[in-house]
Amino acid sequence: MLGAMQDWDLRVTRLIDHAAKEQGGREIVTRWADGSETRTNWAGVRQDALKMAQALRKLGIKPGDRVATLAMNHARHLVSWYGVVGAGGVLHTVNPRLFDDQLEYIANHAEDQVLLYDAAFAPLVERMKPKWITIRHYICFDGKPDGSPGSEFEHWIGAEDGDTDWTPGDERDPAMLCYTSGTTGNPKGVLYEHRSTMLHAITGLQPAIFDMDATTVMLPVVPMFHAASWGLPWSGAAAGIKFVFSAVNDAAVLCDLMNREKVTHSAGVPTVWLATFQHMDATGATLNTLRHAIIGGSAAPRFMLERLMKAGINVAHAWGMTETSPIGTTGAKTFDWDDKTFEEQLDIKQMQGRVPFGVELRTVDLDDPSVVLPRDGKASGALQVRGPWIIKRYFKAEAEAVDAEQWFDTGDVGILHPDGTLQLTDRTKDVIKSGGEWISSVELENAAIGHPAVAEAAAIGIYHPKWDERPILVVVKKPGAEVSPDEIKAHLAKSVAKWWLPDAVEFVDAIPHGATGKISKKDLRDQFSDYKLVDA
Amino acid sequence: MLGAMQDWDLRVTRLIDHAAKEQGGREIVTRWADGSETRTNWAGVRQDALKMAQALRKLGIKPGDRVATLAMNHARHLVSWYGVVGAGGVLHTVNPRLFDDQLEYIANHAEDQVLLYDAAFAPLVERMKPKWITIRHYICFDGKPDGSPGSEFEHWIGAEDGDTDWTPGDERDPAMLCYTSGTTGNPKGVLYEHRSTMLHAITGLQPAIFDMDATTVMLPVVPMFHAASWGLPWSGAAAGIKFVFSAVNDAAVLCDLMNREKVTHSAGVPTVWLATFQHMDATGATLNTLRHAIIGGSAAPRFMLERLMKAGINVAHAWGMTETSPIGTTGAKTFDWDDKTFEEQLDIKQMQGRVPFGVELRTVDLDDPSVVLPRDGKASGALQVRGPWIIKRYFKAEAEAVDAEQWFDTGDVGILHPDGTLQLTDRTKDVIKSGGEWISSVELENAAIGHPAVAEAAAIGIYHPKWDERPILVVVKKPGAEVSPDEIKAHLAKSVAKWWLPDAVEFVDAIPHGATGKISKKDLRDQFSDYKLVDA
Repeated sequence: MLGAMQDWDLRVTRLIDHAAKEQGGREIVTRWADGSETRTNWAGVRQDALKMAQALRKLGIKPGDRVATLAMNHARHLVSWYGVVGAGGVLHTVNPRLFDDQLEYIANHAEDQVLLYDAAFAPLVERMKPKWITIRHYICFDGKPDGSPGSEFEHWIGAEDGDTDWTPGDERDPAMLCYTSGTTGNPKGVLYEHRSTMLHAITGLQPAIFDMDATTVMLPVVPMFHAASWGLPWSGAAAGIKFVFSAVNDAAVLCDLMNREKVTHSAGVPTVWLATFQHMDATGATLNTLRHAIIGGSAAPRFMLERLMKAGINVAHAWGMTETSPIGTTGAKTFDWDDKTFEEQLDIKQMQGRVPFGVELRTVDLDDPSVVLPRDGKASGALQVRGPWIIKRYFKAEAEAVDAEQWFDTGDVGILHPDGTLQLTDRTKDVIKSGGEWISSVELENAAIGHPAVAEAAAIGIYHPKWDERPILVVVKKPGAEVSPDEIKAHLAKSVAKWWLPDAVEFVDAIPHGATGKISKKDLRDQFSDYKLVDA
Repeated sequence: MLGAMQDWDLRVTRLIDHAAKEQGGREIVTRWADGSETRTNWAGVRQDALKMAQALRKLGIKPGDRVATLAMNHARHLVSWYGVVGAGGVLHTVNPRLFDDQLEYIANHAEDQVLLYDAAFAPLVERMKPKWITIRHYICFDGKPDGSPGSEFEHWIGAEDGDTDWTPGDERDPAMLCYTSGTTGNPKGVLYEHRSTMLHAITGLQPAIFDMDATTVMLPVVPMFHAASWGLPWSGAAAGIKFVFSAVNDAAVLCDLMNREKVTHSAGVPTVWLATFQHMDATGATLNTLRHAIIGGSAAPRFMLERLMKAGINVAHAWGMTETSPIGTTGAKTFDWDDKTFEEQLDIKQMQGRVPFGVELRTVDLDDPSVVLPRDGKASGALQVRGPWIIKRYFKAEAEAVDAEQWFDTGDVGILHPDGTLQLTDRTKDVIKSGGEWISSVELENAAIGHPAVAEAAAIGIYHPKWDERPILVVVKKPGAEVSPDEIKAHLAKSVAKWWLPDAVEFVDAIPHGATGKISKKDLRDQFSDYKLVDA
């Protein structure tokens, strides 16, 4: 041995140890579904997590065993994250919005041993119990099975004294399991490791991502069951921030909480901001302390970014997925930010931003993945990613999810700009191939919803004997609005190339959606499988 | 295998790969000793580092071999950091301010094979060459041995094409070697690993430390030969910042560079700020773009922090040492920062701040290290530290530098406050033990230099048969100033306890200093080894 630095394994329990020791009194506030509010702090969360680790061991949970949660955002859910990994277990956060057959599949596939759930999901749990064959114990976070007052979870961990140590293990042990909702086939499990989680958590602190320090007060709207809640419960402990959780996502509740608790940071999908704006416009409410908003999950419209930026809020428009832990890119300031006009800044923020250190991106030809495309701001191709918190192999999969050089194909279609900015244009499965060229279904849809009579629009490719595929646009009109196919085409022609214009516009009453609220192109294509184009 | 995230070793060459790819055009500016300025960028630094790796291999450098630099801050020095580690070598940054016997010792102890040096240090190199027995090659960064124009370094790497890969290795391989100047005995080498360096680099990005993103323009005044330049060359690449280097530390040059290059961040020791303030006061110069100043190396006086804070600059008053890579604590904002008065904020900034995630601190009793002291803001004890970028064993040492639980004794004496804030009070070797109680030499000195007639002061303990030790104060008067011992004692009595007052005040023409500019208490104690107290 020549000399050395200290041995220090990247185990996520170190995060809660740090938060409890260095920011032990920093509050964790919960606004529960019933309107009540409770407060704990990092020291309290750690103590409860230690008790929970003891309680899990008594239930027979051994290192590597999966423990599931079916819950909204609250302090007990946070305790369970650290309690499960602290006992050496693997935390499986189940998305309650999944369909029953998906819920059945993932709990059985994960071989979950214990399920912790919110009282609000009790009907779902009762319905699924007969189908879940591995779950041995059900524990309610905010209710008791007999309906008496109190929390079964608190009662359960309350029997322990917390006088224990975290279960030790290797830094490449699994820590957490999240399933993708999956547009085709069964959901697939992404198994995060202690090491990947830790590198992701520390990376998240930087100004270009979550911008966290001791002054941060974060209200994460992104659910704890969605893509590891973007890693916030881990990064938040590393910085010892104050968390404000709401078990309901009502805009009035969120606005009130943000102002009362002096929330500085929020993170959520665009639809949350839409509802928040509506509430603000209706009531005159303002957000007085917010300074950093992370928006991800799907693309944020320009007016949303503009409104937040004009309110002095730093917007980090982000891209990531369950398979990427999920930090992929964030729309952080470019080096020449202050030299740009507001409109130029908005143009940049509308795209998906750039990678932090650790993540690599490339695009490859949609027809021939061996051809790597240039970062020229023009070439559109299949987006691939690699890095220390990117998936290598799905849970229980027989084969790697990556190629020989560890590139993971995201299923997204995008353009890389010379400065590394990612501009997502479509999903690989949804992009429409016409005459050897590609048409972005998303760009057609975005252009269509700009028409005042259009409530929702979806573009899909229909078989064409000459062109391979041609786009049609499926439109839901706004209540009471009238518009003709030609009027919509004329509107589209203002912003897309002529050969992109759909061969037909079909009006429907509703467009199908998947479990996460996104349009289900697969169901739509099934619906239009017998559709014939007029000239075909 | 249940499932997995990607394999991704923590090798520091990933930093330069990222910077070159994602911020390749971001400038690296150098103001050279001769007044000329050059510009390169991250892509250029990487290309040159690849060429240098090829050139080093041709010189026979193999993985683990040590390559030394004796240089100020400039882009070629930065290239050499990545070039050496890229060839699998260990970068040894030599402090040119060391004494000859120390310079002789460390180069031979490190078994340096190659030395890269600035022309300004050519006389030193010529003087030392006969004593350096392992160095086979000398290469000048900014001159040629025959005195002809140009750079020997550029000529040397210019013979290569850069068409190579970084030498692979394990993440726990050594990457860098820094020697402590050492107040007693020979200097000791701290061997940083790729892994420790990477965790340190990513940690440094967060707002509470270097607060770096793509908009950052950093002028690091801290030399690249001092404590790994606080890790800035590594963190800066992770964020792809613009660097502005100056090979001279003249205040006029630094002020001019900061304004012309729109510097947002700086990092340096307090004396640099003193000189900068003097220059600003003399010329009316202002710092127009600076927003974040990291101050470390020694304690910053209150008026310095006050002046920077009043100018709207966020000050991170930091503590660390070569053995801690060096991030230990930074004086970041507390969670309740905005509720504090300016004076309260200043009180906090005057202390050494709090740990980031990764670092743990504790204080133990000076007499009995098995007694861990409470974090009560009162108990003063020996400061111990541990974490992933903290030393375990000195280079070539026979024994660990830490105890069984990996605690490293820093040699500092400090107080830990309930919120984790570190307040340094002395060095273990300098604290004065009187009647079983401890007197801080640093506090006595700080009180003394508050007297208008005192230029410099040092307190040391002198043997006393009854009290074990009693303090005396050694004072250098300001030119032309007159003051009596009693006047100084009366001044001290305003801020320290009566029993702390020195038994004697001795006036001298000069106080001895060590290689890093700090007072050498060891030499002072030698000087006063025969001193007898009047009542002893």
